[in-house]
Amino acid sequence: MSKEKLVVAVVGATGAVGREMLKTLEQRDFPAHEVIALASARSAGMKVPYRGGELTVRELTEDSFAGVDLALFSAGGSTSEKYAPHAAKAGCVVVDNSSAWRMDKRCPLVVPEVNAHDLAWHNGIIANPNCSTIQMVVALKPLHDAARIKRVVVSTYQAVSGTGQKAIEELETQVRQLFNMQQPEPKVYPYQIAFNALPQIDVFMDNGYTKEEMKMVHETVKIMGDPSLKVTATAVRIPVFYGHSESVNIETEKKLTPAEARVVLTQAPGVTVLDNPGEKIYPMALDAAGEDATFVGRIREDETIENGLNMWIVADNIRKGAALNAVQIAETLLERDLLGVKDTTLFQ
Amino acid sequence: MSKEKLVVAVVGATGAVGREMLKTLEQRDFPAHEVIALASARSAGMKVPYRGGELTVRELTEDSFAGVDLALFSAGGSTSEKYAPHAAKAGCVVVDNSSAWRMDKRCPLVVPEVNAHDLAWHNGIIANPNCSTIQMVVALKPLHDAARIKRVVVSTYQAVSGTGQKAIEELETQVRQLFNMQQPEPKVYPYQIAFNALPQIDVFMDNGYTKEEMKMVHETVKIMGDPSLKVTATAVRIPVFYGHSESVNIETEKKLTPAEARVVLTQAPGVTVLDNPGEKIYPMALDAAGEDATFVGRIREDETIENGLNMWIVADNIRKGAALNAVQIAETLLERDLLGVKDTTLFQ
Repeated sequence: MSKEKLVVAVVGATGAVGREMLKTLEQRDFPAHEVIALASARSAGMKVPYRGGELTVRELTEDSFAGVDLALFSAGGSTSEKYAPHAAKAGCVVVDNSSAWRMDKRCPLVVPEVNAHDLAWHNGIIANPNCSTIQMVVALKPLHDAARIKRVVVSTYQAVSGTGQKAIEELETQVRQLFNMQQPEPKVYPYQIAFNALPQIDVFMDNGYTKEEMKMVHETVKIMGDPSLKVTATAVRIPVFYGHSESVNIETEKKLTPAEARVVLTQAPGVTVLDNPGEKIYPMALDAAGEDATFVGRIREDETIENGLNMWIVADNIRKGAALNAVQIAETLLERDLLGVKDTTLFQ
Repeated sequence: MSKEKLVVAVVGATGAVGREMLKTLEQRDFPAHEVIALASARSAGMKVPYRGGELTVRELTEDSFAGVDLALFSAGGSTSEKYAPHAAKAGCVVVDNSSAWRMDKRCPLVVPEVNAHDLAWHNGIIANPNCSTIQMVVALKPLHDAARIKRVVVSTYQAVSGTGQKAIEELETQVRQLFNMQQPEPKVYPYQIAFNALPQIDVFMDNGYTKEEMKMVHETVKIMGDPSLKVTATAVRIPVFYGHSESVNIETEKKLTPAEARVVLTQAPGVTVLDNPGEKIYPMALDAAGEDATFVGRIREDETIENGLNMWIVADNIRKGAALNAVQIAETLLERDLLGVKDTTLFQ
């Protein structure tokens, strides 16, 4: 197919990630001939900004994908489950930001810096990983290649924007309420998020872990393509608007000194090393907001094991953690001429 | 000596922890015949509340401890270094909340629930551990006794009150500035703390760790009395006013299921288990503020190793993390008749 006539749909165009997807397509000058904004009937008719003008949001229906080459979905799991198969059936390649298709064996789960090669076997639906997983694998993959990571212990410090626009407003509202001597009322989160730390992200599973924590376990293995890689996670929401931070402890097969790890990471795609404690240089959520890179710092030897490292990984959860990664997948599909759906009946 | 005539000094009485010490002495009805509030010359003459009335703050001098039986210090490391020996020389037992004496072999480092027995060999100066260490060892000691902990990987989520009154004001001021479209100006912390996560607490050491992180490593070993216990830590400041949270991963020699760990912790002194994910019951900084207990929840099996557990430990860093622990040490000294200094020349 001709790239000159490329038609791209953004599904969930009015949400925090949808808007960022449009902004990212624009900023990266993605070669779309036409961009269509889709959302639920409730949002149809709304305007969203794009390339100096506006797009009028259309209602998402089963028939929305006729003539569409590529659809970036960010509209929640149930919407993806229902509509992504209709897109694939219409020959439209889906890059889906929900968790609906991530662990489906028919769908590659892709972070371009890590496993762009998995795009070659896509079947029409490609999954975008969870935000906290993306930034972690961007930083861990080069270290895995250099020294083989055996085990990861990660604790996250996640921003409210990961939950969406309503959670951003909730944090802001609660802070205003508290500063006006009012009792904050939690709506999006089970408890007050302002000036608190919530050790729950998403729902709890039978094993006592949250779904968010198990996403980090399973998605990391799938993206890295190494079933022997073991991850244990604790996912925590903190009162930060943008930027997820992660305290990551790794055990490797081969010895890697902090200096060697810094060299490996400095050369790695998508990574920026910020690691000079003497000058108080380390990654922070506030600095990462609005940036494309995954920032790594506080790299130091874990002296409790033979081959261990601690590090601090920070990225903008809305950009690299969602919108940017989806657009990078789309760019890679274009570059490698991987648009089009071979078997349009697979997801029916 | 007679408990009826007990004279107690609080050194640094105008600070956040000093005030909490006075409040704690009052709340626990500590049997002091007289309480003296001491602080730097700058604060002399100020009034601090105690038992419905006020104490007039006196200037701390080398001669402040004549006739004083017990001094609770919370006035910074250099003040402790200078004045605690004068107290000990005067026969006054010091419980010091700074880091000055913690690793000194002449000084026991005590968390009463864990190693009250170490008070028996005190030489006049007893050290109160670092806040983030105290709550961790309260929770880990019973598990160590039950299954021997070999390795701890901890990531902290620490409140600004741990830095003192000025940091509490800094967070509040920065939030107000941001909500009024002003650029916040960091003074206490190197960077903005509002809506950010700072992976630096205290200064950096040569090995790339912060002093706070190394305190957790060394103090845990000294309090638990087990040099084979290995700890690696990442200490992070988050925009919370009161209550430190900790994501703690342990590897044990003996297998301990989450259910068994819950039973052990439920019976442990100073610990309250809050662990029912189905009902969204887990510890949170906001709930721990103002409480005496160390709260433990999110206890679950770490499936990446044979004998591993993850948990979430929360306590009020000003109470159990500082003032309460110091007063509990004082209470234990009284109960066990351990006041008085045997060798008043030791620290000269």
